[in-house]
Amino acid sequence: MKALICRPPGVEFVENAPEPEINTSESRVRVYWAGICRTDLELTKGYMGFEGILGHEFVGVVDDDASPLPRGARVVGEINAGCGRCEWCASGMERHCPNRTVLGILKRGGCMAERLTLPHENLLPVPKDVPDRVAVFTEPLAAALEIFEQIHIEPIQRVCILGDGKLGLLIAMTFGIRHEGPVVLLGRHHEKLKTVEDLVEVHLENQFDATMNKQWDYVVDATGSSSGLNRAMQLVKPRGTIVLKSTMAHAEALDLTPLVIDEVTVVGSRCGRFAPALEFLARRKPPVERLIDAEFPIEQARAAWDRASARGVKKVLLKVNAE
Amino acid sequence: MKALICRPPGVEFVENAPEPEINTSESRVRVYWAGICRTDLELTKGYMGFEGILGHEFVGVVDDDASPLPRGARVVGEINAGCGRCEWCASGMERHCPNRTVLGILKRGGCMAERLTLPHENLLPVPKDVPDRVAVFTEPLAAALEIFEQIHIEPIQRVCILGDGKLGLLIAMTFGIRHEGPVVLLGRHHEKLKTVEDLVEVHLENQFDATMNKQWDYVVDATGSSSGLNRAMQLVKPRGTIVLKSTMAHAEALDLTPLVIDEVTVVGSRCGRFAPALEFLARRKPPVERLIDAEFPIEQARAAWDRASARGVKKVLLKVNAE
Repeated sequence: MKALICRPPGVEFVENAPEPEINTSESRVRVYWAGICRTDLELTKGYMGFEGILGHEFVGVVDDDASPLPRGARVVGEINAGCGRCEWCASGMERHCPNRTVLGILKRGGCMAERLTLPHENLLPVPKDVPDRVAVFTEPLAAALEIFEQIHIEPIQRVCILGDGKLGLLIAMTFGIRHEGPVVLLGRHHEKLKTVEDLVEVHLENQFDATMNKQWDYVVDATGSSSGLNRAMQLVKPRGTIVLKSTMAHAEALDLTPLVIDEVTVVGSRCGRFAPALEFLARRKPPVERLIDAEFPIEQARAAWDRASARGVKKVLLKVNAE
Repeated sequence: MKALICRPPGVEFVENAPEPEINTSESRVRVYWAGICRTDLELTKGYMGFEGILGHEFVGVVDDDASPLPRGARVVGEINAGCGRCEWCASGMERHCPNRTVLGILKRGGCMAERLTLPHENLLPVPKDVPDRVAVFTEPLAAALEIFEQIHIEPIQRVCILGDGKLGLLIAMTFGIRHEGPVVLLGRHHEKLKTVEDLVEVHLENQFDATMNKQWDYVVDATGSSSGLNRAMQLVKPRGTIVLKSTMAHAEALDLTPLVIDEVTVVGSRCGRFAPALEFLARRKPPVERLIDAEFPIEQARAAWDRASARGVKKVLLKVNAE
């Protein structure tokens, strides 16, 4: 089958990838669309030493008569497959299972291929009024909504989001729609900030001066760099909370003393559950399609990768199979 | 009056320090005992650029007819004096007031002197069955108990404390007395660990192997060094909490990616309220006197400083005035 293979320092399109192995606990899915995420770009630079088929953001249809879901049902899929036996799996947090595999990231081939397999319970039907190009945002949207599962935010509290990358924009959308209090997004790209200016207050980062320091109950760092945490420590109120979404490729020089002096809480936040994300897409209709920058057929993987790697680009989608 | 002055890189005993200025909002206190804290040692190395009379841990008596407390009442004192007008002061958190002064630390002379002044409301009477040498631990004990004001810990959860310095030992005592679940203290000094071995499980740090990693719901870093946070990130469970008590003198190379991947929460924790600490001393009788390493008259400040600076030493007290 057609697939994109991780070949650091790049990506390779192949016509003859082996079909994914299937067993009685898993369903096969025919992929319509796959999204390129920053993690994918990092994997093709060698991050985590991943080998195999890339991709973890997708929408497709069940392609399997043995699945509990009907053949042809439109689905998205939770990307973490737990061992099913540990305390994490027992509490519904397969995404922290120490023996998990992760679609297109860890010991499991991904969704940038004509077909994939996932455990039956990982697949969720897409509500019928959620279009494919919207449903493909379920995974990154779940990562944005995860914040609301971790923190208890009061309606009047002030929120500052750092970073106008894809995740930062999704987080801004979710706060813009869900939160009553002030929400500000700081970024570096006027064009990207404009995407959400009807939902939240937006500012170019360098136009946000020191009078804004220590004014924010919650600061979400979605910059993807360690400078984000330093900035967040300036902006957050004493006793406030920083939500940390940025991972770092290397150890960075950091002085965390302000966290202690101001008794700030830092909440590490990764990916989230799909069910609330699908509900949110169906009921609140966040305008995620605005985040689509370009669409490429899977055969044009290199062009898609180049586009997704360019500065200031939003979401790049790959068309895998025709509907 | 006799006093100890911060003179980086050391400390100076003087006979003729000026008496503290007094106004109608403050009470004068005659100091019996003062404790030497790591912060004092840092101040005399130049930290915060502090000038003036050192010291913030004390017990004494009211020495003032205009005080709302009777002359001669035994007291301890909250060290942060807020502006009284900001949102922090209004909510009882003078210790985060941006315009605060801090006894012996920030724009206010300290307690290593025959007399000090503090706002009336900062002074708290010492319960009569709490001896002076115990009451002088109120301030560091409040910093240990602050953890319980910030986190909600369930009885069965597992706690690991890093660092057998004075604060680490006090934290171990409070968890040993208050917490039903497993509590372990890791340190580097067999003698110091022995101080609390009847209250918590103690281990030399290097005897705690990798099988203990990711096993702890709460890890308290009281090592005073950035290596503590790295160790805490190894030990804490996914979705667990690190309580950060360590401040750093410089920016350190840190990779916080594990916080994001494991969705760990870091809670910065500094000093706490005195009222719960006095209650705890009176009712639970933690054996804080075990932490006293040596006592010196204030005139022997240099010897006291040398002792307090030596490796593996616990609390050094200064006798200021006779009872």
